[in-house]
Amino acid sequence: MAPMTTAVSGAGQDRKAPGRPRNAQADEAILDAVLAMLAAGQSFAAISIEAVASRAGVGKATIYRRWPNKEALLIDAVAAMKGPLPEPAGLSVRDDLVMLVQANRTGRALRYGAVTACLLPELLKDDHLRGMYQKVIEPRRDVMRQVLRRGMTSGELRPDLDVELTLLMISGPSMLQNMLNWNPRVADEGFAETLVDAVLKGAKNA
Amino acid sequence: MAPMTTAVSGAGQDRKAPGRPRNAQADEAILDAVLAMLAAGQSFAAISIEAVASRAGVGKATIYRRWPNKEALLIDAVAAMKGPLPEPAGLSVRDDLVMLVQANRTGRALRYGAVTACLLPELLKDDHLRGMYQKVIEPRRDVMRQVLRRGMTSGELRPDLDVELTLLMISGPSMLQNMLNWNPRVADEGFAETLVDAVLKGAKNA
Repeated sequence: MAPMTTAVSGAGQDRKAPGRPRNAQADEAILDAVLAMLAAGQSFAAISIEAVASRAGVGKATIYRRWPNKEALLIDAVAAMKGPLPEPAGLSVRDDLVMLVQANRTGRALRYGAVTACLLPELLKDDHLRGMYQKVIEPRRDVMRQVLRRGMTSGELRPDLDVELTLLMISGPSMLQNMLNWNPRVADEGFAETLVDAVLKGAKNA
Repeated sequence: MAPMTTAVSGAGQDRKAPGRPRNAQADEAILDAVLAMLAAGQSFAAISIEAVASRAGVGKATIYRRWPNKEALLIDAVAAMKGPLPEPAGLSVRDDLVMLVQANRTGRALRYGAVTACLLPELLKDDHLRGMYQKVIEPRRDVMRQVLRRGMTSGELRPDLDVELTLLMISGPSMLQNMLNWNPRVADEGFAETLVDAVLKGAKNA
């Protein structure tokens, strides 16, 4: 299995274990190489293990020791881009949603935003890759689903809320803005709060 | 200048003008070839005029007679994908917004949805292309902006509505769903109505 957790966490505490530092650094470099190549506009199909190895400054064997094939490497790279699964505090639904939107606007997620834009069509048309991608992405969606359902129970949200649509209404604008700065007239500052509050209160004149 | 209108309209009524049919058909084939290649995951940089000509079944000279360079061809292909500028009826803001969402879910827009996903990062990082793309896309955004402002004046929408954010809140979910079927649990049937109504009424328990 690929060392997803190690790579994602940056492996800070692993540095002391003998023999680990080089591996952890190599994993980071390999995952970053894949993401950088995708972000530069290369299609997944066009990326070779040779090219990844060369860019990461490691041998091909180092990659094959950790990942059985290119697909497994891709999925781990996407997981690394997404970062660790966010954990809502569970006090206010509004604050939890803000935190979830913010969690997608940091570090690799923002740096490699263009990756997702370009990669998703490719991922989603291949059934096998689509399935692997779902395994990375569904636990993240579940976190937001649980927050929304909690709000429906607590009375913070409408009892008849369409959870799946609301998921899309929060993630859609976030992804477009993070990946593409799609509407440059929407301010970066306070984006998560502004979006969540707008989704909550609605556009209709009360 | 490139024959954007002719290509976009399908040139039905032009068929009778002598000498036009072949041109209009060639234009269609050329624009479709560009979109199909982009939709197949090729980067804009990797697409050559030769390859477009070959796929469209025309000579390179035919392309160069209509478009001075690859960038102009790309922008016209994007315009053709978007179709003609939609014209809201102006009666109900809700109905106009539904129509605008639906206008992005038909024909080429849907067929080549993946194009936009993959192309935008490439377009937006090049200042010149970004400027050309804005010229295609801003008039479309303006149509929705005008509908939203009309609603603020008429009282259908909050007087303090954030127009730019609302634009993103309607377009973001639409684009993600059209391009990628991002959340397969959201129904296609009635999508435009469901989304617009949810944006209008808000998620908060009233």
